[in-house]
Amino acid sequence: MNWSIKRKGYSPEDITSDGNRLLVGNGYMGIRGTLEEYRKEQLAAINLAGIYDRVGDGWREPLNAPNGLHTYIKVDGERYCLPEKEALKHESGLNYRHGLMKRMTVWRTPRGNITVESERFADAVNIHRIGMRYSVTADFHADVEIVTGIDGDVWDIHGPHYDVLQADEREGILSVEALTHEKGQKVAVSDSATWDFPAEVKIKQEKKGIYRRIIFVTDCAQPYTVEKWVTIYTSEDGENPAEDAYREAESCLTASYKAVKEAHVKCWEERWGHSEVEIEGDPQAMEALNYSLYHLHSVAPRHKEGLSIAARGLSGQTYKGAVFWDTEMFMLDFFLYTEPEVAANLMKYRIGTLSGAKEKAKEYGYEGAFYAWESQEGGYDACSDYNVTDVFTGRPMRTFFRDKQYHISSAVAYGIMRYGELTGDDSLLEEGGAHVVFECARFYYSLLLKRADWDYYEIHDSIGPDEYHERVNNNGYTNRMAKYTLESAVQVADRIKNGSLKVDGISDWKEIEVLRNKCADAAENLYIPKPDEEGIIEQFEGYGKLEDVSIDEVRSRLLHEKEYWGGAYGVAAHTKVIKQADVITWLSLFPEDFPEEILERNWNYYEPRTEHGSSLSACMYAMLACRLGMAQKAYPFFLKSAAADLAGGGKEWAGLVYIGGTHPAASGGAYMTAVRGFAGVYTENGEIKIKPHLPETWKKMRFCIHYRGKEYRVEITKDKSSILPV
Amino acid sequence: MNWSIKRKGYSPEDITSDGNRLLVGNGYMGIRGTLEEYRKEQLAAINLAGIYDRVGDGWREPLNAPNGLHTYIKVDGERYCLPEKEALKHESGLNYRHGLMKRMTVWRTPRGNITVESERFADAVNIHRIGMRYSVTADFHADVEIVTGIDGDVWDIHGPHYDVLQADEREGILSVEALTHEKGQKVAVSDSATWDFPAEVKIKQEKKGIYRRIIFVTDCAQPYTVEKWVTIYTSEDGENPAEDAYREAESCLTASYKAVKEAHVKCWEERWGHSEVEIEGDPQAMEALNYSLYHLHSVAPRHKEGLSIAARGLSGQTYKGAVFWDTEMFMLDFFLYTEPEVAANLMKYRIGTLSGAKEKAKEYGYEGAFYAWESQEGGYDACSDYNVTDVFTGRPMRTFFRDKQYHISSAVAYGIMRYGELTGDDSLLEEGGAHVVFECARFYYSLLLKRADWDYYEIHDSIGPDEYHERVNNNGYTNRMAKYTLESAVQVADRIKNGSLKVDGISDWKEIEVLRNKCADAAENLYIPKPDEEGIIEQFEGYGKLEDVSIDEVRSRLLHEKEYWGGAYGVAAHTKVIKQADVITWLSLFPEDFPEEILERNWNYYEPRTEHGSSLSACMYAMLACRLGMAQKAYPFFLKSAAADLAGGGKEWAGLVYIGGTHPAASGGAYMTAVRGFAGVYTENGEIKIKPHLPETWKKMRFCIHYRGKEYRVEITKDKSSILPV
Repeated sequence: MNWSIKRKGYSPEDITSDGNRLLVGNGYMGIRGTLEEYRKEQLAAINLAGIYDRVGDGWREPLNAPNGLHTYIKVDGERYCLPEKEALKHESGLNYRHGLMKRMTVWRTPRGNITVESERFADAVNIHRIGMRYSVTADFHADVEIVTGIDGDVWDIHGPHYDVLQADEREGILSVEALTHEKGQKVAVSDSATWDFPAEVKIKQEKKGIYRRIIFVTDCAQPYTVEKWVTIYTSEDGENPAEDAYREAESCLTASYKAVKEAHVKCWEERWGHSEVEIEGDPQAMEALNYSLYHLHSVAPRHKEGLSIAARGLSGQTYKGAVFWDTEMFMLDFFLYTEPEVAANLMKYRIGTLSGAKEKAKEYGYEGAFYAWESQEGGYDACSDYNVTDVFTGRPMRTFFRDKQYHISSAVAYGIMRYGELTGDDSLLEEGGAHVVFECARFYYSLLLKRADWDYYEIHDSIGPDEYHERVNNNGYTNRMAKYTLESAVQVADRIKNGSLKVDGISDWKEIEVLRNKCADAAENLYIPKPDEEGIIEQFEGYGKLEDVSIDEVRSRLLHEKEYWGGAYGVAAHTKVIKQADVITWLSLFPEDFPEEILERNWNYYEPRTEHGSSLSACMYAMLACRLGMAQKAYPFFLKSAAADLAGGGKEWAGLVYIGGTHPAASGGAYMTAVRGFAGVYTENGEIKIKPHLPETWKKMRFCIHYRGKEYRVEITKDKSSILPV
Repeated sequence: MNWSIKRKGYSPEDITSDGNRLLVGNGYMGIRGTLEEYRKEQLAAINLAGIYDRVGDGWREPLNAPNGLHTYIKVDGERYCLPEKEALKHESGLNYRHGLMKRMTVWRTPRGNITVESERFADAVNIHRIGMRYSVTADFHADVEIVTGIDGDVWDIHGPHYDVLQADEREGILSVEALTHEKGQKVAVSDSATWDFPAEVKIKQEKKGIYRRIIFVTDCAQPYTVEKWVTIYTSEDGENPAEDAYREAESCLTASYKAVKEAHVKCWEERWGHSEVEIEGDPQAMEALNYSLYHLHSVAPRHKEGLSIAARGLSGQTYKGAVFWDTEMFMLDFFLYTEPEVAANLMKYRIGTLSGAKEKAKEYGYEGAFYAWESQEGGYDACSDYNVTDVFTGRPMRTFFRDKQYHISSAVAYGIMRYGELTGDDSLLEEGGAHVVFECARFYYSLLLKRADWDYYEIHDSIGPDEYHERVNNNGYTNRMAKYTLESAVQVADRIKNGSLKVDGISDWKEIEVLRNKCADAAENLYIPKPDEEGIIEQFEGYGKLEDVSIDEVRSRLLHEKEYWGGAYGVAAHTKVIKQADVITWLSLFPEDFPEEILERNWNYYEPRTEHGSSLSACMYAMLACRLGMAQKAYPFFLKSAAADLAGGGKEWAGLVYIGGTHPAASGGAYMTAVRGFAGVYTENGEIKIKPHLPETWKKMRFCIHYRGKEYRVEITKDKSSILPV
């Protein structure tokens, strides 16, 4: 396996998807895989984690930093830039073992050929720093100008987010400081560059940027290389980000590009040491899977507590840079198994945003914690009441993701409990996690309804994972997850009582005891749909009466290719066609709820009715299929998840608005399928065990996993398997 | 007051509205006020009560009988018919004292002028019979042919409803027998005619009709008159409707038109003797009001038990000829006060359709009786799940009238209880009514939800009278009416227990007692919205948070003049603009729930936010205004209700589909406003009392009302009032 993606030739249609495909990142920032000369039109962006801004009525979204990588050349006075100037030869690529993006482009000029090569990395060691090498080689004596600096005219979806933008040059270091619109936060970028050839330098200041022009004449076949460092700090990092960025850039002037890069590479090697999944016999699967893990590594918040991962990672502003249930239900396992400290960090984000979740619950008249559907800093819910635009009328459509997708809080509780189970570390529960579990349980308790004449509780008017069916009663997934949350609260309370868990900050134990007993009652009496005579579990009340038509038939009813399938009147809304795994997500998480025959019947029933219109869908089908011993059925779903970003495609545009990006939940889902599905890793009585179901072509699987403070190496062949402490 | 409407001149645009305005009817049938030569294109129709048909996926709708009134003339071989042949002079009119429609038309022919005059009535004595006189007078010796017979090619909205149509002639009597599509029911029409001048007669048989051609030459200025009888029977009337219609037509041959008409007129005079409302000082109001009462008389089912009144009366097939809550909540009072036997009949329709209501409740998983939103025979709910078509996509929109407009059952209970209160007659309760009240209460009980932690019951996911806001929680009107129904059940059960009510068919008294106690608990603990600090009662949970914009602003947002304001994404759906009185309907029915100041604040709050997009809206505002002593504020709303059919206008077309017709609920609302509002009739401790609030111009009001088996004459002047037994 060569750990690299190579894109040969140039086609303008790939600009956007390559921006995702060749992304490098370090948790602090994501640098889209765009070329140095690109600007906002080509969606060039250095996307920042955890800092948001809102302008007017637009959606609140994360910031793109002023682009300190912006660089292009002039040869004999003429600009040579893609996509405008057609290249003679072009290659770009990503070494995803080490997070290095490269490009090489040859242009024909009237006097000869000129070659540009570059390499960049988002420093894994010092996360405020980007390193870049940019070389120019001509086969003639060319008058060359390398223009490199900071482009403050950034790509925004709902911007512009910078009200003020100040650019200056001091001691050869270029700096831009920008002020955000909503909160007046600062984003500072500095840029220092060195080169080892004689050149004239001029500073070029523009309204929204500052550049240095490095002017020289080339010798034939001699590479002229600029090494450049870009440093980024924001108000989230300290009081004087401009000063910090400047000092950092200044110190880089004495740094060795080679040494810094080596440290960066070493850091990545360490990561892979714990996380690489080796698959013998199926290089395509191994590549796709590890490429997925690369993306998870690139967006993992390692540098700071209280950050999580957005649904589109750090690939841009789409999905508002917000944290969804994706993190807990799809990505968390990867970190739990390979780097539990990151998993802890992800869950600390939820602990830190408990107050926002409590406010949201209150807003809707509920108690406890109703986590944000699209969570930004502080737990602010960026989800709008009108999240989709009607293609027929251009009007915003009232959607219910924010107010009815109750299952979000259960995902948070699930994440916290699962952290404890897999790490054996109670500190998360002890330091805030228990409160989160209690408040989530309290939230579900306040949702419960009892009919005057019935003995059990119900949850009405909800939306499950399948968003095509709104405002339904007793969605199986939602109810099952609520039950899980209520049970978790009971479990946590009981552990506090028996002294095995020491939780601070419980002022009123009696009140917790009351809650515990309510939760126990509710968990026991909450209505959970049961299989019908055919063994099928109704996704929600009334699902069985909906029109039973094929996905193709539903698609053929579209009047407009971009119309929303869900909502009140969408083509899928009154049929059995669902957007993504819903009952199957439940069964995949809790297969022990039913005998295997029931699981299989539901898999067979729901799969043909699932559009898989979400990247969260395939892995749930894949995992359950593995559990049922149907590795071959699971395989295409696994590959679909694993290759989500490699293959590109998928929904990237809604009208004129870009909604694409990377899919870390699909990456996480691919990992879960490999480890929990094919390798069949599970735990029982505090021990880690495996029950493998390898796809036919897989000869061997090898990976490390953490469990309760120890690391194990798992090795599986067709004949034998082993789990050994590392 | 002259009790007549005269329409002078002819304009084709009035064809449709005159069809409603000049309607005559006798409860068995409604004959649209169309001209004799009109056919289906002009919406000519003899609409039948209580017999329905469905073709394919079309809406189920009542039948129009083969049109036995169809008649036209030929002069010198040429047809003289409106609207094709322009008339020299035209007048049509209705004597609504006696239910006589007339027309007079003069055409200029090449040789001179010819005049057609006609008169028709739907016999009030023998409801299977229509009488018509048709005269031709020429001022020259014209070759005239009167073509008169039965036109079976009837107007249908979702037809054709007749699969087979057989026409024949026997002994000069023309007959058509038609077979309906869905149930193969028979509709038979016969036609006998006499004339006292020599003429040649030829029979003309067509594919869908049969006619006689009466051919003669006129003397100058001499009227040539045909007296014609049309008789109608259906399978609902007996086993052999064709024979019945034929025999009846045959017997008419020896009848005197004058004598039959006199008996008909006498019958109407008797009705007015009990129901006329005299208003001195405001002829416009008196005319509009009594014209409204004329329409109620014309559609009242007097001939047969188990019939009710459709929302568009007998003016056609719109609104599926179905019975809505309109009957109990808007029309019933008129009959209770003037002709309690009709009121009893209306309520017997509901008793007779209890099994349909129980089935509907079961269908939705509820108990008890959930009455049809659009009730046809047997309680069949004609309301579709897709009752509106999206103008932008042409797709049916999922509506919730059928499944969420829970208040329908309370209207039925209200009607039954009110019958008992105003008539003092327990027979209705004893003969089925008590069961209906119990089953309606049982239905509401099964709807009740209790949050896990709260002490009271709620009703979620309902639609109140304001249909622009769907699927709301705790709609004040719905909850209040549910409470009323529950209380009624308690009251009825207690009367059975104390022996003051003898109800047959209670097999299990213990079960009733259990129900009684549940209802008592529920009535006490059902959540009823309370006024906020401003005194405003929130129409439903969350109404207060909706956008507060003017009706004009909402209207200005329409992208298409015919788009639906409600639904999930309609222009009104997310604003405070409501379709019709909702909280105000509640307050109008139960003003004693709150002090007058609260009533007034809510009137002032909701009125400007009410589009009055339903003819059920104005009278509720008018009645409450009267109660608050604001007769002048009430007056325009009263007049709007009273003149609903006189003025015409309103919404008559949805796309290419006719949805207009008469508005008996507005008529009933006008009556309620006059009698309960302006005259201030109320009852207290078994006595009838008045507290008048006459509009300024009204000098005197005089009318009769029934109360507990006696008739009273009420006379009100500015100075004094009296209620005296008749």
